[in-house]
Amino acid sequence: MSRFTGLIAPNLTPFNTDLTIATDLYIEHAKWLLDGGCSAIAPFGTTGEALSVGMDERKTAIEALVDADIDPGRIIPGAGLTSVADTAELCRHAIELGCAAVMTLPPFYYKGVSDDGLFSYFSALIDAVGSEKLKIYLYHIPPVAVVPVGVELAARLNAAYPETVIGIKDSSGDWENTRRLLTEASGLDVFPGSENPLLDALKLGAPGCISATANINFDGIIATYKAAGTPEAERLQERIRVFRAPFQELGPIPAQKWLLAHRSGDARWRVVRPPLEPLNDAQGKVLLEKLDALSEPAL
Amino acid sequence: MSRFTGLIAPNLTPFNTDLTIATDLYIEHAKWLLDGGCSAIAPFGTTGEALSVGMDERKTAIEALVDADIDPGRIIPGAGLTSVADTAELCRHAIELGCAAVMTLPPFYYKGVSDDGLFSYFSALIDAVGSEKLKIYLYHIPPVAVVPVGVELAARLNAAYPETVIGIKDSSGDWENTRRLLTEASGLDVFPGSENPLLDALKLGAPGCISATANINFDGIIATYKAAGTPEAERLQERIRVFRAPFQELGPIPAQKWLLAHRSGDARWRVVRPPLEPLNDAQGKVLLEKLDALSEPAL
Repeated sequence: MSRFTGLIAPNLTPFNTDLTIATDLYIEHAKWLLDGGCSAIAPFGTTGEALSVGMDERKTAIEALVDADIDPGRIIPGAGLTSVADTAELCRHAIELGCAAVMTLPPFYYKGVSDDGLFSYFSALIDAVGSEKLKIYLYHIPPVAVVPVGVELAARLNAAYPETVIGIKDSSGDWENTRRLLTEASGLDVFPGSENPLLDALKLGAPGCISATANINFDGIIATYKAAGTPEAERLQERIRVFRAPFQELGPIPAQKWLLAHRSGDARWRVVRPPLEPLNDAQGKVLLEKLDALSEPAL
Repeated sequence: MSRFTGLIAPNLTPFNTDLTIATDLYIEHAKWLLDGGCSAIAPFGTTGEALSVGMDERKTAIEALVDADIDPGRIIPGAGLTSVADTAELCRHAIELGCAAVMTLPPFYYKGVSDDGLFSYFSALIDAVGSEKLKIYLYHIPPVAVVPVGVELAARLNAAYPETVIGIKDSSGDWENTRRLLTEASGLDVFPGSENPLLDALKLGAPGCISATANINFDGIIATYKAAGTPEAERLQERIRVFRAPFQELGPIPAQKWLLAHRSGDARWRVVRPPLEPLNDAQGKVLLEKLDALSEPAL
């Protein structure tokens, strides 16, 4: 596979009011993101409510994308569950569909485990999948998974499996961690999990970013990526940072879905699966007011 | 189903050296626990490394127990994953086998979710299973799952589904939480997830306890349960408390497995699945020294 640069979109998963996946919207949204310039989509990440969607549902949904003529070479499904067996099953499914790679959480149930234990887990996973076609982006998101993929572990996995463990999404929100990854795990493609440190990360060799906000602001993020090194870059960076903030405050998944429902008029976009809750009308109004208050609308 | 009293054992899952489930040992151990006086087993809880075992592996293992003539009416499988779809699948499988009940974690990936969101999750789960045979023990283990099943949520679920949500295992290690459950969620069978507060909990109406240490000390725990209200009870309570401590210190799962390997001579008992790690020989020696140092051996 060729390595990705630019913006990768962890696409949201729309649901019908009965909580089944709204496949038509799912396909339409994925195409919109890719046609709009996202280099790839990463379905079933945290933003895609991956862990609220069953294994069979996930497989069916990704098959629907490929059946709708979306290039699997631009799809990086999330595959991380808590066991080697189930994670390997999702990895094999992605490989069979021709997907570019997978993104894998660490096993996130047992807490306080050692780097040696986590290394053994990923080794067992790679053995269980048993395919040279397996390409893994590690997924470090300690605010949610709690279990980390630390810098040393990431570098060690890349050193042991340089053709397999090829990248990492760093959703720590901790620039020092991203900086260390970029300098100490330089065999990996290190994508910050947010557009906020995009320019700083690009300066240290990051290929781009993987950000939830791609779902609602890919234009702004891609413009910033393309402007890197030009006089306009810092102004664009500040603009996307300010645009992102209200979503973080209100809950990124329900807030982004609320905005997509508002923009499209399709109320299904508001639906989230429990345990998450949708934005209510008052919260939606707050969101719109915050976005209206931005001196230069990002969109 | 009749409600359980006494000691329920969250049975350990033994693995072969290739990390497959050691089915022969699994069956033998389950029978030993039940024949020894445990009222039920709770396979694939935290202690059973449930979240390191794939869905199909879990189903096959529980089928093996039933095929080996273990009464499914004394089996309470853990069924809690992070999605309604997959958790419902494990619940339906347990019902089809005739299992007494299931034990379900809250959806433990997304953090900081509301009680309303968690209530909606369990409601959706109960709807998805769609069987009057579904009997749920909630599972509150915040040190591991992080996401809690709080007292108000537990009481609310029991009030809404009194025939379905029948009990809770409280592995918070927080006596105040157990006390509140016993007094404020009295429609539930409240089992402390440890033998340490056994006598105090029985006094407030608990039917018994569900404790990992049942795997290695069911005699001591059952003796304490039976002695409740007699002059000897407090001495027995203190004895099982002291016996439990070294396992907590060294890591309950690897330490218990190490002791079973030591007792049985079957080295397979030492094997744990990653991300957990087995005790090494030095740690095993420490464990034996700590147990030897107990003035009155519990076994």
